[in-house]
Amino acid sequence: MSFRSPVSDVEFVLSAVVGYNQLAETKRFEDAGAETVSAVLGEAGRLCDEVVAPLNRASDLQGARLEDGVVRVTPGFDAAYAAFCDGGWVGLAASPERGGMGLPETVQFAVNEFLSGACLSFQLLPLLSQGQIEALEAHASEEIKALYMPKLLTGKWSGTMNLTEPQAGSDVGALRTKAELNGDGSFAISGQKIFISWGDHDLSENICHLVLARLPDAAAGTRGISLFMVPKYLPNPDGTLGTANALNVVSLEHKMGLHGSPTAVMNYDGATGWLVGPENGGMAAMFTMMNAARLAVGFQGVGVAEAAYQKAAAFASERKQGAVGGTGAIIEFADVRRMLMGMKADVFAARAICYACAVALDMEKATGDEAWMARAAFLTPIAKAFGSDVGVEVSGTGLQIHGGMGFVEETGAAQFVRDARITPIYEGTNGIQAMDLVGRKLSDGGEAAFRLLDEVEANAEAARAVLPELGEPVWSAAETLRETSEWLVAQDQGARNAVAVPFLRAFARVLGADAHLKAALAEDGKGPRAGLARFYIDRLLPEHDALCAQVRVGDKGLYDLSVDDLLA
Amino acid sequence: MSFRSPVSDVEFVLSAVVGYNQLAETKRFEDAGAETVSAVLGEAGRLCDEVVAPLNRASDLQGARLEDGVVRVTPGFDAAYAAFCDGGWVGLAASPERGGMGLPETVQFAVNEFLSGACLSFQLLPLLSQGQIEALEAHASEEIKALYMPKLLTGKWSGTMNLTEPQAGSDVGALRTKAELNGDGSFAISGQKIFISWGDHDLSENICHLVLARLPDAAAGTRGISLFMVPKYLPNPDGTLGTANALNVVSLEHKMGLHGSPTAVMNYDGATGWLVGPENGGMAAMFTMMNAARLAVGFQGVGVAEAAYQKAAAFASERKQGAVGGTGAIIEFADVRRMLMGMKADVFAARAICYACAVALDMEKATGDEAWMARAAFLTPIAKAFGSDVGVEVSGTGLQIHGGMGFVEETGAAQFVRDARITPIYEGTNGIQAMDLVGRKLSDGGEAAFRLLDEVEANAEAARAVLPELGEPVWSAAETLRETSEWLVAQDQGARNAVAVPFLRAFARVLGADAHLKAALAEDGKGPRAGLARFYIDRLLPEHDALCAQVRVGDKGLYDLSVDDLLA
Repeated sequence: MSFRSPVSDVEFVLSAVVGYNQLAETKRFEDAGAETVSAVLGEAGRLCDEVVAPLNRASDLQGARLEDGVVRVTPGFDAAYAAFCDGGWVGLAASPERGGMGLPETVQFAVNEFLSGACLSFQLLPLLSQGQIEALEAHASEEIKALYMPKLLTGKWSGTMNLTEPQAGSDVGALRTKAELNGDGSFAISGQKIFISWGDHDLSENICHLVLARLPDAAAGTRGISLFMVPKYLPNPDGTLGTANALNVVSLEHKMGLHGSPTAVMNYDGATGWLVGPENGGMAAMFTMMNAARLAVGFQGVGVAEAAYQKAAAFASERKQGAVGGTGAIIEFADVRRMLMGMKADVFAARAICYACAVALDMEKATGDEAWMARAAFLTPIAKAFGSDVGVEVSGTGLQIHGGMGFVEETGAAQFVRDARITPIYEGTNGIQAMDLVGRKLSDGGEAAFRLLDEVEANAEAARAVLPELGEPVWSAAETLRETSEWLVAQDQGARNAVAVPFLRAFARVLGADAHLKAALAEDGKGPRAGLARFYIDRLLPEHDALCAQVRVGDKGLYDLSVDDLLA
Repeated sequence: MSFRSPVSDVEFVLSAVVGYNQLAETKRFEDAGAETVSAVLGEAGRLCDEVVAPLNRASDLQGARLEDGVVRVTPGFDAAYAAFCDGGWVGLAASPERGGMGLPETVQFAVNEFLSGACLSFQLLPLLSQGQIEALEAHASEEIKALYMPKLLTGKWSGTMNLTEPQAGSDVGALRTKAELNGDGSFAISGQKIFISWGDHDLSENICHLVLARLPDAAAGTRGISLFMVPKYLPNPDGTLGTANALNVVSLEHKMGLHGSPTAVMNYDGATGWLVGPENGGMAAMFTMMNAARLAVGFQGVGVAEAAYQKAAAFASERKQGAVGGTGAIIEFADVRRMLMGMKADVFAARAICYACAVALDMEKATGDEAWMARAAFLTPIAKAFGSDVGVEVSGTGLQIHGGMGFVEETGAAQFVRDARITPIYEGTNGIQAMDLVGRKLSDGGEAAFRLLDEVEANAEAARAVLPELGEPVWSAAETLRETSEWLVAQDQGARNAVAVPFLRAFARVLGADAHLKAALAEDGKGPRAGLARFYIDRLLPEHDALCAQVRVGDKGLYDLSVDDLLA
């Protein structure tokens, strides 16, 4: 019943669905061919399955605790983190000039998908460091890069993101943390930040906080925000640790799940920090981290969903109840099978969408082509929202398959539900993702959207000849979605926002169908992948019609009830 | 931000949607007119809001514990239970000859809905006693009735249901607990039972276990099961307590939610019990309890959903984020409004379906009319499954509206999600409810289903003249559902089971639309209820089409993947 990283499923998606081979044909990633990827993923899978996954239950029961101002983490995390860092996994996608391995982000996302299935709490720690590495590479001064990146790449130091304040959740522009210039070019940072994942812990020697703050007289809103590197210990120029900085953990949150990941309230009391990127340019630097983090959260949902699926399938194949044929286990019951196939089909769809986004990001890096950039930008909110929604839905169905045992914590099914529940919230709620999609991401008049739909329709058109019962409904769904998209881009922002969430999901449903269709075509319409594609296209794709119908309502009647009516 | 029992919403549903007035016109319930009901619900609401709801958080944090073989419950439950019992609330629907109040079950369900919103863990205790009272009234000997019912009605003793065994979850027929005749007409009960809610506690003097067991040489399966009353303390004929029975609590489950309700593993070691109903007639007696319990669980979902909605609406009306018009709170954002209106619309729909079922049950009791019996039987699985699904979905959306705060346990939104999560599982999983619907409940060739659809269409037909934009889509959805139902009744059981869940939900969607339409008509298409009806019919009803499309797939392709494929 233990977790097995879905190495071959991911390899299949990369090769047969999302066109990974294009990446390996670029100059930048010429060394990252299928064989290399296979070796890397196999190795990562072993680490996740054998070293990390066995810690998942402990991460829930013995979560992070604050003791006398020091955060103590789950027993066993220390050895697993050391193994992860020693394997060079933190720097998988970082540039070789800095000591990274220079592999595509896509490969790093795959490792992070496996790690999420093994133990989501643990996964966040290296993920945050990787996001910081990326932000520093893009925006930091040479001095900061030279000092921090070697330590981050080896995992000796770890990174955090400090955005949220009590009064500024989704509204980053409302933050109040202050940064005042010291005499030496550094800044004194003062303020309180909340929801800081891995804000403190005892696994790395130093913790590097990237903190958003305002300079004196900065403009209001997001235009007046700057980014600062604020380390827990002030490093000497040679990289050794100096004195403790003026910052501390106030408390840890008591959360529904993700107990192994310490979520800190951080207090900065004139802490020393250094500017990353230009003054008042903090949002751009933050977006570098945020964009990668958004896609990473989509993969987190996929990873937890995969683990929840595996557990439910194993339970259903062992649990005997009533008189059924075959193995005599509940996996033979039609309704249990419907649930399992639905879970597996949605994991496949969400995974394909996430990897399609990852490949587009890497292609953008490798080629500088704006069309890839637009595609990555368009797919990011879909991958984040659909991936995390699938994480919640699939883990919920997994719990349901366990019946009463699912509600008992010892079983482990409930932990997936509780851990996954944060993913539709953090890195921008899924509602905000959807508003990004119908706002900024349709501000090109829908060009990126229609280009994707062109490809879906071309693929479906080709499939019509060989697999008409699959190609036909996918073509028709894409056409409905095209008409709905055309309608939507003609609406004002108010109407768009009102139906952003169903629009995003409709798009995900169609992209998922396209991915399943490709899988079925790759195996000539035969075998289990084609069977799963049939299930998805017959049973899950129809939701798309209802979603498009919702979209067409726009904001009609949305304000017919007053606030008092809603509170009555 | 505290819970307020939705007294006026329930009164509206009773009077304007589900035809409660028919009940008050029967001889049996002639004293239960609208004024009486209003007084009773008002009083119940005060008790729930002021006495029970304040204990909800404590029920989560300081749940039941097993200490030296004795179960200790949440501090404060003792006083609340005493207040509940002193008010006569346990015996609200029990017959006056036994000391009950003789009110319709519908009124008791309403009180239980409020109580679920106030504190679900607490609600289970009197609910189980009420189920036992009903089973004893229907099946027990005069001697047992005389001895047990007065104690149960006053809450001095409480009741439990003992069905499940480790190897027999949903498959009750596989149970192994033995009952052997003692010399004195009593039986010696031996075996282990699991998932026994409120199996032990210190709030009542005695605990009356109704236990399913097998007599020696009983037939295999459900035909060989008998029901026994097995009290914790053996009562003397005068009702005083005698010696302790040979039973004990082995352990309590560590659950995802519902911490305040002790879920016991019970061991019976030759415990003394008395037969309830005929030998080998245990399933019939159990079904009396189960049927009421199924509908009660639907109401639990509605109750928790209502509480989660209230909390989310209050939060959204107070939380300021970003620049919006109106109050400046996030309740003005289109997507937050979409979520809140969706929650409110689904709570209304699920509530209406549950009360329609309750009224049908009472009408059956009051008139003996088989059509009411068939309606209640048809609506029961829909009410249970849709009510509990809405409980999970609405509490999930409520958490989402809170953003990061929702994931923090102190906020209270997560507790609703965790507590509600058991409701789609216990009293028969929602998959089993759906199979009951497409199996036994369509074994009349769909007569009960079509009669309901006739009424929905007649109502929609009438609405077409005055509110065509609402009447038209409801009529059309009912027609699609009729065709789908006709198709389904022509299929074999395998195909029906494969699509039982989407069929049940499609039916619930249409019945919910009918209820909203009635609400809109009752207020001449104006005001907040009509606004909510528009929201539901425009945005939530379309799901029904996708569900009907799924139903039409039957079991096609469901076994294309082998068990090995699913485990690969």
